[in-house]
Amino acid sequence: MADLTGKPTLLARRLGIDSQHEAIAFVQKDCAACKSEGFSAHSRVLLQNGSSEIFATLHYVTGDLIRPEDIGLSEIAWQRLNLSESTLLTVSHPAPLTSFADVRGKIFGQRLTESTSHQIIQDIVEGRYSDIQLSAFVTACSARVLDGDETIALTRAMVDTGRNLDWGAEIIADKHCVGGLPGNRTTPIIVSIAAANGLIMPKTSSKAITSPAGTADTMSTITNVALSVDEMKAVLAAQKACFIWGGSVDFSPADDKLIRVQKALDLDSEGPLIASVLSKKVAAGATHLVLDIPVGPTAKVRSIEAADSLRKHFEKTAAHFGIRLRVQVTDGHQPVGRGIGPALEARDVLAVLRNQPGAPPELKDRACLLAGALLELTGVAEPQSGTQKARETLESGAAYKIFEAICLAQGGYREPPVAAHLRAVTAPHKGRVAQFDNRRLAKAAKLAGAPEDAEAGIDLHVYLGDIVEQGDPLFTLHTQSPGEMAYALDYVASNPGIVELTAP
Amino acid sequence: MADLTGKPTLLARRLGIDSQHEAIAFVQKDCAACKSEGFSAHSRVLLQNGSSEIFATLHYVTGDLIRPEDIGLSEIAWQRLNLSESTLLTVSHPAPLTSFADVRGKIFGQRLTESTSHQIIQDIVEGRYSDIQLSAFVTACSARVLDGDETIALTRAMVDTGRNLDWGAEIIADKHCVGGLPGNRTTPIIVSIAAANGLIMPKTSSKAITSPAGTADTMSTITNVALSVDEMKAVLAAQKACFIWGGSVDFSPADDKLIRVQKALDLDSEGPLIASVLSKKVAAGATHLVLDIPVGPTAKVRSIEAADSLRKHFEKTAAHFGIRLRVQVTDGHQPVGRGIGPALEARDVLAVLRNQPGAPPELKDRACLLAGALLELTGVAEPQSGTQKARETLESGAAYKIFEAICLAQGGYREPPVAAHLRAVTAPHKGRVAQFDNRRLAKAAKLAGAPEDAEAGIDLHVYLGDIVEQGDPLFTLHTQSPGEMAYALDYVASNPGIVELTAP
Repeated sequence: MADLTGKPTLLARRLGIDSQHEAIAFVQKDCAACKSEGFSAHSRVLLQNGSSEIFATLHYVTGDLIRPEDIGLSEIAWQRLNLSESTLLTVSHPAPLTSFADVRGKIFGQRLTESTSHQIIQDIVEGRYSDIQLSAFVTACSARVLDGDETIALTRAMVDTGRNLDWGAEIIADKHCVGGLPGNRTTPIIVSIAAANGLIMPKTSSKAITSPAGTADTMSTITNVALSVDEMKAVLAAQKACFIWGGSVDFSPADDKLIRVQKALDLDSEGPLIASVLSKKVAAGATHLVLDIPVGPTAKVRSIEAADSLRKHFEKTAAHFGIRLRVQVTDGHQPVGRGIGPALEARDVLAVLRNQPGAPPELKDRACLLAGALLELTGVAEPQSGTQKARETLESGAAYKIFEAICLAQGGYREPPVAAHLRAVTAPHKGRVAQFDNRRLAKAAKLAGAPEDAEAGIDLHVYLGDIVEQGDPLFTLHTQSPGEMAYALDYVASNPGIVELTAP
Repeated sequence: MADLTGKPTLLARRLGIDSQHEAIAFVQKDCAACKSEGFSAHSRVLLQNGSSEIFATLHYVTGDLIRPEDIGLSEIAWQRLNLSESTLLTVSHPAPLTSFADVRGKIFGQRLTESTSHQIIQDIVEGRYSDIQLSAFVTACSARVLDGDETIALTRAMVDTGRNLDWGAEIIADKHCVGGLPGNRTTPIIVSIAAANGLIMPKTSSKAITSPAGTADTMSTITNVALSVDEMKAVLAAQKACFIWGGSVDFSPADDKLIRVQKALDLDSEGPLIASVLSKKVAAGATHLVLDIPVGPTAKVRSIEAADSLRKHFEKTAAHFGIRLRVQVTDGHQPVGRGIGPALEARDVLAVLRNQPGAPPELKDRACLLAGALLELTGVAEPQSGTQKARETLESGAAYKIFEAICLAQGGYREPPVAAHLRAVTAPHKGRVAQFDNRRLAKAAKLAGAPEDAEAGIDLHVYLGDIVEQGDPLFTLHTQSPGEMAYALDYVASNPGIVELTAP
């Protein structure tokens, strides 16, 4: 069949396949549209449903999965075309992706400009890049290191292609952690301390991509985090702060598409990292930002020199966008807090906020250090007095009070859930805790089921330097099913160095 | 379910989806294997069927496409696992892809070594790289230009991971064209001339990837080109030469995986290009190679300087592998031969071999030039006399005689087919033919149906410099269906510069 302009049409069928960000369309190899349009397997095609149009990658089907007059769609294709039932789609060749010529230019050594960055990011946001093309762009930005101006251009492009908020206030506080350390769930505590001191802090956080938990995963075990921008504004008006999932607003929509490929390639480069972080802060209207850079042998940043280079690059870019930045380099040698996994981390956060006796002291100390830096940066506290002021706010119960109020404003306040299956992993011999392998700890927590199972993860019982006897518990695995427990135990057994013990 | 080692199993189902080189597996999002193994969408997983094992990329399915106990497989996954019916597969996490750390190293500026190249290429050949990872490797090899030693290392790796032939002869002749010029089907003519002069020439050729025809597509309209290595050896023993499809033997199996991604990105870089070409020549046992580099504004190589750089890089690498190389830079301003598309190009080749009056003189001249270079390089002809000797071989009918004998030895000799629908495209005004846009000509031929429809393509009626009157035919479109004709005509109408006419 063909539409009025003579372009072939095919009947859309929803296949229920999750192809993530890349829209995929399935057609019979010898369908009339393929013949007449000259498509081949993996062609990029333009699909149109009235005024909705998307790029998709074509896969051939040889069996009876679909009929010759059908076009099967992956979920993201179905959604982007705003389909609710089978509909005739127009199928044609897309206009050339001119921005990819600029990606090729970057590969061969040209610099990104404001204009080329904007066009590339716009096309990425609109789903015009295949995964192969996204991978080439991400790789090019690592192989041809972005200089300061290119980082600014990329940040600007990521801001301009998404939603932007202006709170009409002089000071909008924010914090960010460069990551790589299990646990380290300081954000809800810092936000509460800042709000209790009168700061406006519209905090958005991410869900885990490859880690066992993101702040949004952790907070979703306590309250609602998927708020619309209007709901977010209402919470802010009432409580000055919030903890919501960034995915539910639309700041820097290019970011998660790029991060997904960066993670698949395990590629971290300064320029793209800075653009990723700062684009979301600029879009959210932040004016004052504290940046936590944990440094340790198995953290994301592994040396003071690397942290220093990253700090300078961050400062230059933040200054361009009028953001006052304070970088806090922190200890990244061991996890922060005892829990690793959404609910276990939430438990630690609540223990600190409630001033419970068993609260992890290092989580409290780090939250007060970073909150103090934010109080000093925003002029709420005198230099050198921020940490003390933050500690007083926390210990007085004022931080917990506003935390509770924010949760209720976000639609509910509940205790985090507890896992069905627990198994302790014990010391094979007497020794001193010499090192934590943060990456393998995170892996074990994920095998236990985090973050999909909010209850799952790891509960640590030791700190660096502790002396343990043979048989003492090092950590406890939490899972929702026996199968996941067996798998996590198997991984732990074959990776004895997750918690390294040396002769005491 | 689980196997004896406790790894979960799922029942393989063939979905008939052509995912090209990347194996894809489809599972229900909440299947037990996903939960127990901690897989997520786009995880790379290891699938095992007895001793067959492959890496695959996991896609989640939310509908009723497959049951929770099933795992749907794309065609390449089904084939690589040697499945003939539904079978229980073990599903687990693959061992880490250690070679990708070397790709990351290359991205950040480390050089490829013999050892890292080998491991990367081995993993690519065995299907362990996802398309995203392949794209990163291909991009890195363009952004971080390969030096001479790296090109040699990559070539060696591509040779060592595939089949190698040794013919036990001192001289094995070969030729290659760097491409980018429509038509230019000199190979069958050169092979026939060489064989008629006693040279051994076990020629393998490729099918089109993005062009309207490869030599294998063209020859498959005349004879069988998909021969096994044993069949190839039998043809060589009888006739000294052959024209077979390289895909049916197994030289440099990494090559088509890399080329597919290079084409998707439209990335051409010297190092990977040289490794691609020479790895197949080394594997095929070639000792003497003539390399045709057409230079023109819309050819692959666009300047004499670029051709010169490419020549030097080629010479250095070929010398390392003991191949005597002669580079012939040729005119790449216009198509060679009148036909563009498998059958139309075959018609031109036959006309030259049969010494027919209407045979395209430029195709004959170029074939004689290149065959002559090969005769001189191999010592069969004196310097400066090769072209003349080649012409005599052709005009005497000796080349045609052996061409026919080779075709018969390959299993048959038939006339190329003719298209059902023909439409001439005429000059819109009087003028002189000033330029051909080779890329758009190729595109138009593909829209007409080439190479899938062997009969389809373009038949040119003019040369550069010709004076045409308004209404004179410039070229004729050949298609198998009216739909394809409409589409090709539409493209030609909206791209009037395909054949550029200036005031005479």
